[in-house]
Amino acid sequence: MNILVINAGSSSLKYQLFDMTRETVLAKGKVERIGMETAMLTHEPADRPELREVSEIWDHTTAIRKVLRILVDPKEGVLASMEDVHAVGHRVVHGGETFSGSVRIDDVVKREIRRLFDLAPLHNPGALTGILAVEANLPHVPQVAVFDTAFHQTMPPVSFRYAIPNVFYKKHGVRRYGFHGTSHQYVSERAAQRSGKPLDDMKMITCHIGNGASVAAILNGKSLDTSMGMTPLEGLMMGTRSGDIDPAIVPFAMDKEDLSLGEVNSMLNKHSGLFAVSGGMGDMREIVEAASEGDRNAKLAFDMYEYRLRKYIGAYAAAMNGLDTLVFTAGVGENSALLRKTVCERLTFMGVKLDDAANESGTGGDRRISADDSQVDVWVIPTNEELMIARDAFREASASSECEGQANPDSTAPSPAL
Amino acid sequence: MNILVINAGSSSLKYQLFDMTRETVLAKGKVERIGMETAMLTHEPADRPELREVSEIWDHTTAIRKVLRILVDPKEGVLASMEDVHAVGHRVVHGGETFSGSVRIDDVVKREIRRLFDLAPLHNPGALTGILAVEANLPHVPQVAVFDTAFHQTMPPVSFRYAIPNVFYKKHGVRRYGFHGTSHQYVSERAAQRSGKPLDDMKMITCHIGNGASVAAILNGKSLDTSMGMTPLEGLMMGTRSGDIDPAIVPFAMDKEDLSLGEVNSMLNKHSGLFAVSGGMGDMREIVEAASEGDRNAKLAFDMYEYRLRKYIGAYAAAMNGLDTLVFTAGVGENSALLRKTVCERLTFMGVKLDDAANESGTGGDRRISADDSQVDVWVIPTNEELMIARDAFREASASSECEGQANPDSTAPSPAL
Repeated sequence: MNILVINAGSSSLKYQLFDMTRETVLAKGKVERIGMETAMLTHEPADRPELREVSEIWDHTTAIRKVLRILVDPKEGVLASMEDVHAVGHRVVHGGETFSGSVRIDDVVKREIRRLFDLAPLHNPGALTGILAVEANLPHVPQVAVFDTAFHQTMPPVSFRYAIPNVFYKKHGVRRYGFHGTSHQYVSERAAQRSGKPLDDMKMITCHIGNGASVAAILNGKSLDTSMGMTPLEGLMMGTRSGDIDPAIVPFAMDKEDLSLGEVNSMLNKHSGLFAVSGGMGDMREIVEAASEGDRNAKLAFDMYEYRLRKYIGAYAAAMNGLDTLVFTAGVGENSALLRKTVCERLTFMGVKLDDAANESGTGGDRRISADDSQVDVWVIPTNEELMIARDAFREASASSECEGQANPDSTAPSPAL
Repeated sequence: MNILVINAGSSSLKYQLFDMTRETVLAKGKVERIGMETAMLTHEPADRPELREVSEIWDHTTAIRKVLRILVDPKEGVLASMEDVHAVGHRVVHGGETFSGSVRIDDVVKREIRRLFDLAPLHNPGALTGILAVEANLPHVPQVAVFDTAFHQTMPPVSFRYAIPNVFYKKHGVRRYGFHGTSHQYVSERAAQRSGKPLDDMKMITCHIGNGASVAAILNGKSLDTSMGMTPLEGLMMGTRSGDIDPAIVPFAMDKEDLSLGEVNSMLNKHSGLFAVSGGMGDMREIVEAASEGDRNAKLAFDMYEYRLRKYIGAYAAAMNGLDTLVFTAGVGENSALLRKTVCERLTFMGVKLDDAANESGTGGDRRISADDSQVDVWVIPTNEELMIARDAFREASASSECEGQANPDSTAPSPAL
């Protein structure tokens, strides 16, 4: 069975095609600048050179058509025909309180994703556009939605509620949802497998540290708490996001600098974080290099980033009354040995002891980087959200295959194309 | 030497008169509802019955005059004459980055307190009004300002900076200041004394848990970090304050409920916290009782309060890479054995072990409540901010007594009265 995984944003679309017999990637790629004359398709078939193509692509439906065409292209493609795409899995950022797992997409699901635009105005519209575009091109292929929030739906109210008037929760859905759930779940399961320990009897903290970043406390395999909140803004300092601040800063900044609601959101999401503190650097490698050359702003940015991550690890150890496994993943988590070393060296009080050589030397692949006598196992586990989405799509599409091809009288799908 | 300690708010004023020879309280009291016809003076001389008097008190100058009159009243008073007030210490909430310690008040200090109105619009105006009112009544008596923020001025940038554009720090002073500094300093010094350990070689966390609440990480006697931020809103869940939330909730709530900047500030500061979650209860005793009778909202409020406090303790242990002393103080911290027990029972992973009997039984006075074999000493230390203010006022007034009585050509004090 071949599964196409789609991660659609407002003006971009990433894809990966999996052969699920051995969970191999047949091809992957992306379409950028959708809606512009200079849209670009980048296609990477497995074991063949990358291909780039610039053309007008005015909408997601056209973008998906381009992707499907290249997947079946006699020269550049990897499939014999469209019918070899057996199911499509979509990354959807926000599943609200409705979705605690992946689901086969139908009209009810689409309506719910649309209803959640309010909570994820920057993310859910792109995902729905991607779903409709696939539907337009492949009307009979099952589609599955995999939500970034679903894994965190096990959080108890003590973690997910905010101490503000109840009306905001009841009427507007204001609560902690958490994100990166697919990644936290993937690396936690993987770390348990690799440790040979039962996930349902572990106190684990997973650090997904990329451009966006979040930490999760995973108690007995279930998300107990996570640092992102109602939106991805809360929690750790990130590439361009502030993470935690005094909430009173928001009205204060709006007043002092005469900012609108949109402007203050943009300031906190796009012009803050490492970028703001370092004075314009958004990339951790650049920051580490500048800091090592004496740049004080870069040094402060690194130190704040590390300090705040370390405090979250301490907080979540206290949340679980202990810690046996600490996992680093995503861009910075997988690649910055310095960040991992700095964090771990200052957590010796809770039994963390790094194996410096293992931390420095390994590249790629899962690896344990704690010393043999560390009370806490520390792992680097490369994340693979696309594979998780493909697995869920495979499972959900297989489970509901008896319904496949049935007419859906409520269907609001645009007329098929391609 | 007798020191009068004043804590002036916008419509109230508390006082305590100390005899510093033995640090005893001669009298204390408060004036409430200043500006109304039904203002009330409550006066408590040491070892004599409390006295209440309702009258018109239109401003702080009149309030101070009333206080001074009752202090020298032949029947209710405790002093022979006004001249027996040798210095006055004022609690001032916000000292910005200017004041890292207590100072003798002069025109420069008053101007600076006024300049900081922007950062503490609810607190500093009341304090300045109190200062001017004392000046009007006792023009030749030295006055000393003691700042809630001063103790936390040792925080390094990694703790005090927010990851938002630098302009907000440089131009508007947006950074973590922290509050309750006088209390955190007092209880940390006291805990070290009582432990017989050197404060400058201790990893201590102090929890000031009253209606307002904050935690401080005190490394080697210096504040390393604290949970309140630019304003007292950040950090722990409090009586009516939200504490930490996703900052994106602020513009979201403003948009959805059409709130102004003032309204959202008011919502987060006055209508949130325990009050909001419990459904209208603002007092921890009431909440504990309701929770024990099965009230689910009260239970959730208690659980969130405890959970968030515990996470901060974990975070600050990680900030210092260890913890040897944990201190509880202020209303809830001193009186809720249940809160202390719940927190400590879930921190066994970091070596906290409570002596249940000691935790339950003691009332009043400093007491150690950890078991003899606990790796972390846990203390209950009743706070005494007024005594700290009196000590600072005593020291500062004595140090600068050679200047006493000198004319101050810049004085902007209202014409003396009384």
